[in-house]
Amino acid sequence: MIVCFGEAMVRFAPPHFARIEQCRSFDVEVGGAELNTAAGLVRLGREARWVSALPNNALGRLVVNRVREAGVCTEYVTLTDDGRCGLYFLEFGASPRASSILYDRKEASIAKSKAGTNSFWGGKKAGTFDWAEVLDGADWFHVTGITAAVIEDRDVLSEALSAARSARVPVSVDLNYRSKLWPADEAGKVMAGVVKGVELLIAGEADADNLFGVKGDSFADVAAKLADRFSVKHVAGRKRTTPLFWRNSSWAVGFSNGELFETPSYEVEIVDRLGAGDAMASGIIHGLLDGDFAKGLQYGAAMGAIKQTLPGDLPWIDKEEVEATMTGQGLRIKR
Amino acid sequence: MIVCFGEAMVRFAPPHFARIEQCRSFDVEVGGAELNTAAGLVRLGREARWVSALPNNALGRLVVNRVREAGVCTEYVTLTDDGRCGLYFLEFGASPRASSILYDRKEASIAKSKAGTNSFWGGKKAGTFDWAEVLDGADWFHVTGITAAVIEDRDVLSEALSAARSARVPVSVDLNYRSKLWPADEAGKVMAGVVKGVELLIAGEADADNLFGVKGDSFADVAAKLADRFSVKHVAGRKRTTPLFWRNSSWAVGFSNGELFETPSYEVEIVDRLGAGDAMASGIIHGLLDGDFAKGLQYGAAMGAIKQTLPGDLPWIDKEEVEATMTGQGLRIKR
Amino acid sequence: MIVCFGEAMVRFAPPHFARIEQCRSFDVEVGGAELNTAAGLVRLGREARWVSALPNNALGRLVVNRVREAGVCTEYVTLTDDGRCGLYFLEFGASPRASSILYDRKEASIAKSKAGTNSFWGGKKAGTFDWAEVLDGADWFHVTGITAAVIEDRDVLSEALSAARSARVPVSVDLNYRSKLWPADEAGKVMAGVVKGVELLIAGEADADNLFGVKGDSFADVAAKLADRFSVKHVAGRKRTTPLFWRNSSWAVGFSNGELFETPSYEVEIVDRLGAGDAMASGIIHGLLDGDFAKGLQYGAAMGAIKQTLPGDLPWIDKEEVEATMTGQGLRIKR
Amino acid sequence: MIVCFGEAMVRFAPPHFARIEQCRSFDVEVGGAELNTAAGLVRLGREARWVSALPNNALGRLVVNRVREAGVCTEYVTLTDDGRCGLYFLEFGASPRASSILYDRKEASIAKSKAGTNSFWGGKKAGTFDWAEVLDGADWFHVTGITAAVIEDRDVLSEALSAARSARVPVSVDLNYRSKLWPADEAGKVMAGVVKGVELLIAGEADADNLFGVKGDSFADVAAKLADRFSVKHVAGRKRTTPLFWRNSSWAVGFSNGELFETPSYEVEIVDRLGAGDAMASGIIHGLLDGDFAKGLQYGAAMGAIKQTLPGDLPWIDKEEVEATMTGQGLRIKR
Amino acid sequence: MIVCFGEAMVRFAPPHFARIEQCRSFDVEVGGAELNTAAGLVRLGREARWVSALPNNALGRLVVNRVREAGVCTEYVTLTDDGRCGLYFLEFGASPRASSILYDRKEASIAKSKAGTNSFWGGKKAGTFDWAEVLDGADWFHVTGITAAVIEDRDVLSEALSAARSARVPVSVDLNYRSKLWPADEAGKVMAGVVKGVELLIAGEADADNLFGVKGDSFADVAAKLADRFSVKHVAGRKRTTPLFWRNSSWAVGFSNGELFETPSYEVEIVDRLGAGDAMASGIIHGLLDGDFAKGLQYGAAMGAIKQTLPGDLPWIDKEEVEATMTGQGLRIKR
Amino acid sequence: MIVCFGEAMVRFAPPHFARIEQCRSFDVEVGGAELNTAAGLVRLGREARWVSALPNNALGRLVVNRVREAGVCTEYVTLTDDGRCGLYFLEFGASPRASSILYDRKEASIAKSKAGTNSFWGGKKAGTFDWAEVLDGADWFHVTGITAAVIEDRDVLSEALSAARSARVPVSVDLNYRSKLWPADEAGKVMAGVVKGVELLIAGEADADNLFGVKGDSFADVAAKLADRFSVKHVAGRKRTTPLFWRNSSWAVGFSNGELFETPSYEVEIVDRLGAGDAMASGIIHGLLDGDFAKGLQYGAAMGAIKQTLPGDLPWIDKEEVEATMTGQGLRIKR
Repeated sequence: MIVCFGEAMVRFAPPHFARIEQCRSFDVEVGGAELNTAAGLVRLGREARWVSALPNNALGRLVVNRVREAGVCTEYVTLTDDGRCGLYFLEFGASPRASSILYDRKEASIAKSKAGTNSFWGGKKAGTFDWAEVLDGADWFHVTGITAAVIEDRDVLSEALSAARSARVPVSVDLNYRSKLWPADEAGKVMAGVVKGVELLIAGEADADNLFGVKGDSFADVAAKLADRFSVKHVAGRKRTTPLFWRNSSWAVGFSNGELFETPSYEVEIVDRLGAGDAMASGIIHGLLDGDFAKGLQYGAAMGAIKQTLPGDLPWIDKEEVEATMTGQGLRIKR
Repeated sequence: MIVCFGEAMVRFAPPHFARIEQCRSFDVEVGGAELNTAAGLVRLGREARWVSALPNNALGRLVVNRVREAGVCTEYVTLTDDGRCGLYFLEFGASPRASSILYDRKEASIAKSKAGTNSFWGGKKAGTFDWAEVLDGADWFHVTGITAAVIEDRDVLSEALSAARSARVPVSVDLNYRSKLWPADEAGKVMAGVVKGVELLIAGEADADNLFGVKGDSFADVAAKLADRFSVKHVAGRKRTTPLFWRNSSWAVGFSNGELFETPSYEVEIVDRLGAGDAMASGIIHGLLDGDFAKGLQYGAAMGAIKQTLPGDLPWIDKEEVEATMTGQGLRIKR
Repeated sequence: MIVCFGEAMVRFAPPHFARIEQCRSFDVEVGGAELNTAAGLVRLGREARWVSALPNNALGRLVVNRVREAGVCTEYVTLTDDGRCGLYFLEFGASPRASSILYDRKEASIAKSKAGTNSFWGGKKAGTFDWAEVLDGADWFHVTGITAAVIEDRDVLSEALSAARSARVPVSVDLNYRSKLWPADEAGKVMAGVVKGVELLIAGEADADNLFGVKGDSFADVAAKLADRFSVKHVAGRKRTTPLFWRNSSWAVGFSNGELFETPSYEVEIVDRLGAGDAMASGIIHGLLDGDFAKGLQYGAAMGAIKQTLPGDLPWIDKEEVEATMTGQGLRIKR
Repeated sequence: MIVCFGEAMVRFAPPHFARIEQCRSFDVEVGGAELNTAAGLVRLGREARWVSALPNNALGRLVVNRVREAGVCTEYVTLTDDGRCGLYFLEFGASPRASSILYDRKEASIAKSKAGTNSFWGGKKAGTFDWAEVLDGADWFHVTGITAAVIEDRDVLSEALSAARSARVPVSVDLNYRSKLWPADEAGKVMAGVVKGVELLIAGEADADNLFGVKGDSFADVAAKLADRFSVKHVAGRKRTTPLFWRNSSWAVGFSNGELFETPSYEVEIVDRLGAGDAMASGIIHGLLDGDFAKGLQYGAAMGAIKQTLPGDLPWIDKEEVEATMTGQGLRIKR
Repeated sequence: MIVCFGEAMVRFAPPHFARIEQCRSFDVEVGGAELNTAAGLVRLGREARWVSALPNNALGRLVVNRVREAGVCTEYVTLTDDGRCGLYFLEFGASPRASSILYDRKEASIAKSKAGTNSFWGGKKAGTFDWAEVLDGADWFHVTGITAAVIEDRDVLSEALSAARSARVPVSVDLNYRSKLWPADEAGKVMAGVVKGVELLIAGEADADNLFGVKGDSFADVAAKLADRFSVKHVAGRKRTTPLFWRNSSWAVGFSNGELFETPSYEVEIVDRLGAGDAMASGIIHGLLDGDFAKGLQYGAAMGAIKQTLPGDLPWIDKEEVEATMTGQGLRIKR
Repeated sequence: MIVCFGEAMVRFAPPHFARIEQCRSFDVEVGGAELNTAAGLVRLGREARWVSALPNNALGRLVVNRVREAGVCTEYVTLTDDGRCGLYFLEFGASPRASSILYDRKEASIAKSKAGTNSFWGGKKAGTFDWAEVLDGADWFHVTGITAAVIEDRDVLSEALSAARSARVPVSVDLNYRSKLWPADEAGKVMAGVVKGVELLIAGEADADNLFGVKGDSFADVAAKLADRFSVKHVAGRKRTTPLFWRNSSWAVGFSNGELFETPSYEVEIVDRLGAGDAMASGIIHGLLDGDFAKGLQYGAAMGAIKQTLPGDLPWIDKEEVEATMTGQGLRIKR
């Protein structure tokens, strides 16, 4: 069972490339980096538990309902009167106009969550999450830099990571730097602590430079330096060419024990690229849970490509479809 | 030209009586008590100016666009980087299930607006609104208790009212008490100042009791006391029977100079009852601007009834339609 | 086989009671008085042929396609380069706001159709319709006052009626007076000729007075005078009470050979009342074709009621449903 | 934890009262009598487990996803290659046209489920359901006559009931006779065995007569006879008046230990009446689990009324809303 | 007049690339190989008659209505109480995810149709179709391998082909092998009989190998062998490159009397590729009816390309558009 | 402030590439060449006034509302009882099927507008537009060949141009030849007068040849001849390659004072190409108003490209977005 910890937001998007400002009806999806990864793992046949905090109102329930629909366990989602539901508004782009996102996630319930779960004295449960309980039975713990950025009380994530370490639960971290959430130098400082000694670090070259000042000639070079500096076992990254907005080619790269891995590249016709990186993370974790990083990257590359062909942030892929893609099925309709 | 001052929110509603928590697509409308009244006055052939503050982003522009679409002047709407766009989520009910509203309007740009426009020393414009400019050419100023409740800096509204008084612009106030926004005692204290000496006070009997402790046997009784206590010229109220959720009958009552006015009652088949009171306010102000309170109530009653047959908060009525309703047209299709 | 002659228009209606002027998407239906009646007869198991003229473009084809979908024969619909496709825009009302219709049917192809089919000299076919061919095999010919109003060349309808008379095809006429199309005095003069000696005249009391100055104490009284003045065998009318816009009760009345017929009344929850009178006409003609006026009125009353529960102008009723309604089935779902 | 056993179907319904035969787009819901009851219990704060069999394809997964979305446990839903997914097509009616349902549920996976779970010899699990496992931890077992009708192998339900008896799990049965599924005499024979000794029997007076020949002057009379004949502790029924299709009044009646219970009646504006009886069942079971039949009927009556105001078969009610309705809240919007 | 014989199904597809399992609303189309070809012929200005069997319910009527809408004659469609309406569910893909189809067509009415029409003794009509009547006035008879696969009673198709032979009606067969419907060896045996001596055989190289073990270096080689083995006059095939899912290039090839034909290739932006081969068949038959195979292939290639730009299985092309495409019109909007 | 003079039509388009003739619901937009340009100028931060005539009905109001929504001044739009609202129906194409447009704009109110505003004697205002008033405060006047084509009274445009000349308001003309509106020779004669001495002429090479017989080897050559013949200061043109329907590359070219200007080319993924040329015109005028033709072409090229990525005729671009595109921003989502 994989535990994923982070925010989810309700997403509002105008249909068919319209502008938000002229929109009369918004399509509603639910997404969040760690949630997306949890959903991907469920689609690959694993059990996943999503840990979060949401307001105890109709929007909070909307999120919970859709997480359940995706088969992700919501037992450790706290419904609280504190804070609101994070929202975001998405405009789909087309070349040469980029997609754009308007976040309305301030004062979200998870941002206001509190550390203090593990307080033993006085028996008073002060924190929002009881990590011992949450991690009970966990095979893996996954988190991204977004969680680090949004929770005001920095101790919440520290507690989670300590608890994982104590329980010998392997940890993966996707840097996922968002400049709209925090400045790079602050992010660098915080994330340096977060990624220390994790089993898997997912990091793009730009973020490595931005946050940690780690530069290199190639992904292998950068990954080697990251692995070394932060005592990380596996480093992975998502590659893509973006000649246009409705088309790209995407693949995965990995580095471990001095070895570079690179998957084949997929030609992608893009329906909705949100959550592609998170879907890739599912695949990689899936492989690592079977002790096979190379296989994980293969799954990750296929998941990341297929996700882009599906509407919404959650990767509603089929495992068979992923595996057929990995083995090069054609594009004919199966009849 | 009528100046209306207050917040507008983007409204999200699931189609066809669905629950918010199961909704896949929200219909988008724009509404706000004073804005609704401004739009109603435009539909009656008058010029109206809506004064407000909105975030300088796609949601803020969505509101401005739709206000312009309705023909209301947006020249004095401030687009600011301060605060967010107020939102609300609406579930349509059916007997015996009431409609319900989830507000997500905290930290709205208008709530964070600041007083200080009229600072004469040093020439420095400190406040959000320049009331002298805003009220230039105004024949009327309209505001409701919601504006009083949401703006954190209480001086903003005081300034507006002083400016109106100085400029000899008649003022109307709709009490519009919202218990989700502020407690009754606080509202009572603030609103006592706001309604002092206004030309028109719109107040239900329950609110009169709730906020001011004014009780009476009848609307006439309560209205007489309110008129007396607050030196108000005209007092008006909306009456309705609500046997069901898709049906009611509604009419208007008024009190002025010791005289009671009561309009005929309309049988209403309800499509969307939001904004009915604000539409009624348009009609009453319309009459008073022509110096005829009784006529205003007639318009108000018809506007309030017809608004309930139209989707959205804004009263997209036709003036001819209102007048035909007032003179008792039938329900046959005109061919 | 019943021949129905008249215009059909494409209808555009905003969904869910919205105004045309704020509409972002129109629902599209097809309707026309005689076409609606033809479709009703097909639903009752009869063959019907609709005769008309339409532009030879995508809108004309849209109409033809949907007429065919409804099972009505379109073999004698002329697609021409002359004229345009009639359109109408419909706003659904709710009490106290009446529905309203905006016609945009000027210059329609049928309005520009020409007489002259039956020209014997020189063998040159000058007219739009060849009535001998059109009426070949016909058991009945149906037309309404709308056809008389819209076709500029008055001889077109005269020719059709002469041809029917020659071929001994019984004729029904629904007065269907539309004040937006022509003045009452002109309509009166023209329709006096049209209804002369027909088998069935459908006429409301108001139209009888308006067009022909025929007044009376009751439907029976008026019908007797009409039957007498115009040598008409059967006179029928639709009755309804309209307390509200979403509810009425409706029934049929008839007069023949000095006898008055009156059906039971149906309580109707109204989805779309357009075409109810035309659906009633189908039922009455259906009965008369079996030589049973009373039965025809029964069918007509049920058809007219059920049509109002179905969206669009065409009466997509089931014959079984009509007969179940006539025998008083309840409102429980059949499982 | 309540165990509910039965079929669920995917439901296709044309929007806005259209006919199936003219429909271009179907709205999709999921429903099934026992599933609806399970969902209602979850909404009241209880845990419920739905037991069923579905095809292992996209439609089967659609059902499972939406059951999970509703918070009902799907752990004991068998996905199988045997059989197909039951479907039904629904046309919404309006007076005088009744709603109608077209079932396409033959060869459904659950219909083909097999008995044989409890085979002890040889350790071979021959049946579809392992009732010992399924009922582990159960506080209640609920089933309806539909399950009895659809499963070809009659022993499947017998096994389930025996297992419940062995495990001392109280049982409720809703007769739910469907004449489209089986003849009354066959249903009578089978159901006589099914209802024997259950804790709660939900039965209408018509079905009691139809299936068992039990007649009486009143619900109390019939219920007394049923209780006596089948050794049933509690008998309940749903009452409603159906003057129209969009309006009814509905309430619940119960009989236990010689005592008659009757709840207040609710005036209902009907959005979707499917599943109202199943929602009522949730309320009654909820009360009985707390040992309070009268309370159960109160909840049941409110649930049954509110369900009719919500689209879809599943009762997406709020517990607070139910309780507010029970205590007579008005129909004003809460602001 | 062309007679086309086969099944049609109702097709349900989620909008905008969504998964079936998460879909809330399905778009509804109607399609079937032979029906699609019939519709294409009508669009080219010919008369076509579609022969089939459908259940006598709302879904069966839905199919008939839409076939009529497309202008195809439905006089010989049998509405029966035997069997159900075939359905299929379609998910639109995007590279690298293929589209997928879920058939739910078992127990379809046509599958249960019976042979025996031509029984001469006793005058008793035992079969579902009376081929003498059906083929009366026919200029061509078209069928595909799907019809051969789905009808349980193999004699039905044999009877049809014998009747065509007797009536000297030329026959075309599209192999259309569907592995989900029957195994290749069975299909090979049955189809060998079906294609014997037909005027036109449409066959891909893969199917020729699969079903008949006919291999070759090129289409010409394979076609020559097929023509020889089965005494077929014309052999045709559809060629396409499928670099991606939203783009391909497609053209037609043919072989007759030792001569190879190949049309230009069209660059296609794909909206809905279902029915492209059937549309091509329309074009080829259209040409052969004029005695010009080369022209037929030209029409076929253009029809097959244009069909892919239109939603739904039926080829709603314009004849002018086809011809403009054949002569190389550009892509500018005509204004 | 820029004054733009011309017709606007309501546009009806079937969703998702469907044919008009099978459409059940049309999406509604508003567009017109000069209006589109006015809207583009508003989006670039300028004030624009649109001058036109529309019927005083719901369709006319629909146009006005949406023009206001776009921020364009409608003060000089005449609502009249003369004429109807121009409509057009649009089918979106995909290669190899071109988009097509069906105009239904005959008898439009603007087509029936009358000259005569500037009559000084007798004080009688005979014309539809009072150009002195309309042009008061204008910095620029923009019109296209469509306006010249549609207004029956040719003097209307002459008056406008004279008034602009008198008021020393610079004029831009986009040839915009539409062969469906008038023959090339007539257009050539009229437009020769219209473009005489204007500040900016937008003309494609094909139109230059077609209308004026001006041919050349290159845009520069043709533009030089046009500039010379008509004493035009700046000549501009839109270039694009159209390999497919959903993709093109587009850029702008200009010629002034013997100098050729050419912008970079943009790779465009096309959502809706209508109005691209009009959006380009906005950019060019924007530059010229700042005295910088080269800058104008840069803005124009970016506006023309981005417009094609947005649904509807009006260019709902952001100024920031335009400038980011001009400076080569990538296609990554901004987060």
